[in-house]
Amino acid sequence: MNAVAEIKDIKLYMRGLGEQARAAARVLARADSATKDHALAAAAAAIRRDAAKLLAANAEDVAEARAAGLEPALLDRLQLTAAGVEDMAEGLEQIARLPDPIGAITDVHERPSGIRVGRMRVPLGVIGIIYESRPNVTADAAGLCLKSGNAAILRGGSEALRANRAIAACMHEGLDAAGLPRTAIQVVATTDRAAVGELLSMSQYVDIIVPRGGKGLIERVMQESRIPMIKHLDGVCHVYIDDRADLQKAIRIADNAKTQRYGTCNTMETLLVAEAIADQVLPPLANIYFDKGVELRGDAAAQKLVPGIKPATEEDWYTEYLAPILAIRVVKDIDAAMEHIAKYGSAHTDAIVTEDQARAQRFLREVDSSSVMVNASTRFADGFEYGLGAEVGISTDKLHARGPVGLEGLTSQKYVVLGDGQIRT
Amino acid sequence: MNAVAEIKDIKLYMRGLGEQARAAARVLARADSATKDHALAAAAAAIRRDAAKLLAANAEDVAEARAAGLEPALLDRLQLTAAGVEDMAEGLEQIARLPDPIGAITDVHERPSGIRVGRMRVPLGVIGIIYESRPNVTADAAGLCLKSGNAAILRGGSEALRANRAIAACMHEGLDAAGLPRTAIQVVATTDRAAVGELLSMSQYVDIIVPRGGKGLIERVMQESRIPMIKHLDGVCHVYIDDRADLQKAIRIADNAKTQRYGTCNTMETLLVAEAIADQVLPPLANIYFDKGVELRGDAAAQKLVPGIKPATEEDWYTEYLAPILAIRVVKDIDAAMEHIAKYGSAHTDAIVTEDQARAQRFLREVDSSSVMVNASTRFADGFEYGLGAEVGISTDKLHARGPVGLEGLTSQKYVVLGDGQIRT
Repeated sequence: MNAVAEIKDIKLYMRGLGEQARAAARVLARADSATKDHALAAAAAAIRRDAAKLLAANAEDVAEARAAGLEPALLDRLQLTAAGVEDMAEGLEQIARLPDPIGAITDVHERPSGIRVGRMRVPLGVIGIIYESRPNVTADAAGLCLKSGNAAILRGGSEALRANRAIAACMHEGLDAAGLPRTAIQVVATTDRAAVGELLSMSQYVDIIVPRGGKGLIERVMQESRIPMIKHLDGVCHVYIDDRADLQKAIRIADNAKTQRYGTCNTMETLLVAEAIADQVLPPLANIYFDKGVELRGDAAAQKLVPGIKPATEEDWYTEYLAPILAIRVVKDIDAAMEHIAKYGSAHTDAIVTEDQARAQRFLREVDSSSVMVNASTRFADGFEYGLGAEVGISTDKLHARGPVGLEGLTSQKYVVLGDGQIRT
Repeated sequence: MNAVAEIKDIKLYMRGLGEQARAAARVLARADSATKDHALAAAAAAIRRDAAKLLAANAEDVAEARAAGLEPALLDRLQLTAAGVEDMAEGLEQIARLPDPIGAITDVHERPSGIRVGRMRVPLGVIGIIYESRPNVTADAAGLCLKSGNAAILRGGSEALRANRAIAACMHEGLDAAGLPRTAIQVVATTDRAAVGELLSMSQYVDIIVPRGGKGLIERVMQESRIPMIKHLDGVCHVYIDDRADLQKAIRIADNAKTQRYGTCNTMETLLVAEAIADQVLPPLANIYFDKGVELRGDAAAQKLVPGIKPATEEDWYTEYLAPILAIRVVKDIDAAMEHIAKYGSAHTDAIVTEDQARAQRFLREVDSSSVMVNASTRFADGFEYGLGAEVGISTDKLHARGPVGLEGLTSQKYVVLGDGQIRT
């Protein structure tokens, strides 16, 4: 299979995808739960059956990317394993088991005028998703869009095109089995970068863009497109160890939040420690970090407690390292911790470790982040861990969807009014 | 009172408002329900007590606007009456009685990892509202922002500045009584148009803009601002009279939807009639419209049934007249009606009149508008009529808020994770 399709007129090609997606969205919006779940189950079965084929397509992608000198971090994300293929199939089956968010009328109440007012959850329409490297996004995002009654236009990384198309073929098999149009899930079959520009300009066909890439991509979407987006900016996540913390939990959580994986957005980047217990908690934690090769940068108080901590600059407090580096600050109390988070944080995920319920409640209420946690690792901030089945992305915006975006974030609610001839007087 | 404050440095002045609003928002986010409701009740009492003062301030505004040649429609909206003042006070009391949307943790469920995941509704922060003429918006919008824990920066029309400031003084009295900062509700005290430009540029201080003006204003916000907005575009609303309609209800609803008020966004602009009953329903309806001086523009079938209907052009189907003009089209059936609405409508409010439950359900589900109605007048599409207490605006967007925006549209939900030392493996 030649990964690069020969498409001469990108504009025409993309408009075609858009028009087909819009038409498919109307069909999907009307599809009942059983039909959509049948499509998801059949797609999962096709993925499982075609595992060897998917791995072979991916191996070709990886070989080509390696030859082209793709950096190791991206190569790592590009790589599919047998377990990864099984995860995709299971993910689709899990999405099928989730309740259908679409169609039910809720919150119905009668008004003095006699009308009954309620709300109905409906799909957004057509979702454009722009992502890189990781081929499993193709199955996850397509599955969530399908279940929520939306059509998807998927623009994955050029380096993953073979695997993405093979996965899309399985999704199409699922759609076929359920009698739904294949155009409900379309993979942009060209590596031409102009396709992204076209996608961003098609506001008549695309209702929302989900850019899953670096900040450069998000900047580009913000500048080029008038289509609303679910965007994911920095993850400068904090753990605050309160002086009323259980120190064993604190050490376990602070270790996990930093070292379980370095490159993810929900990894802790700054550790805040209450001064009253800093001398008990920092030395043993520092040993753990040093053993794992984590570089520590701290304020004067932290440096005084642990030799080997380098000085942190103002810049460090703002930094999302995505690497084995951790900033550490000793703070007076929960107020100082929340002030630090408000000033330097990115409103992604922040946790407090404390046994004091009143302080836990204050932290939950007052820290203005998409996920706030008590006595748990920031690494849990994830659609799968939250029970959303999967996630189409994590939103750091406040409007519409906040935090991991699953089915609900791909829908909106309209008002439904039921009358019996009522008029307004 | 000189309506036009002497403000030399608009930029500095607006940044000051922004900074104060941001600080006030943090206080408001923490305020409990009783405190906010106390402020609302005290503000309502102040408005009632100051009714004569408010009417006098408004009379000065109106006199000046009339002298300056403001057009009659705007003069009409500018005018406050004693009943209007009472409505403002009652509106604030109603908002006080609504449940507080903020702070409760809902949807808590335990995950296999042992963490409990829930959601907490939180304020958006600082709301910037740009509006024209109608002074009651000052009380309605300020009341909704206050109850939902948001700080408000209100930029009303220059022509209404005296009344707006007098109303704001009453709101401040309410905030004082509850021990909340006056800076939670700030009226931009200058008529300098540059103030709007500044407001639109202050993304560090303003979380959301609500432009309540014409399309020109919305275009300006879209072009100048990176702050998200709740926007309200056209209201090209339809009533479809099905051939299974109760014709008495149909006539009553189609009359009311058009003629109860001509200049509102939820007024019907196009009437669709099933061909099987067009000859029974159109002639009597046309008589009603003609009696009220409504100009009718129809397709060939409508013209054939009723002499005096002028020909409609393609342009008419897209037009929001906001005037005593109505477009009429005879359609084959519900499918043709829904196709017309999908093509020409503005996704604001659309109604079906039918006694057929299956068709009603199809219409509710398949028409993609912010409000969809069965056997009721489109004129009901309104925050007050829906029981939201008031509305800060009506959204024709799909994301975040859709339809009349009350308290919930001024909030978002964050994820809350409760653990007992859980880490991710």
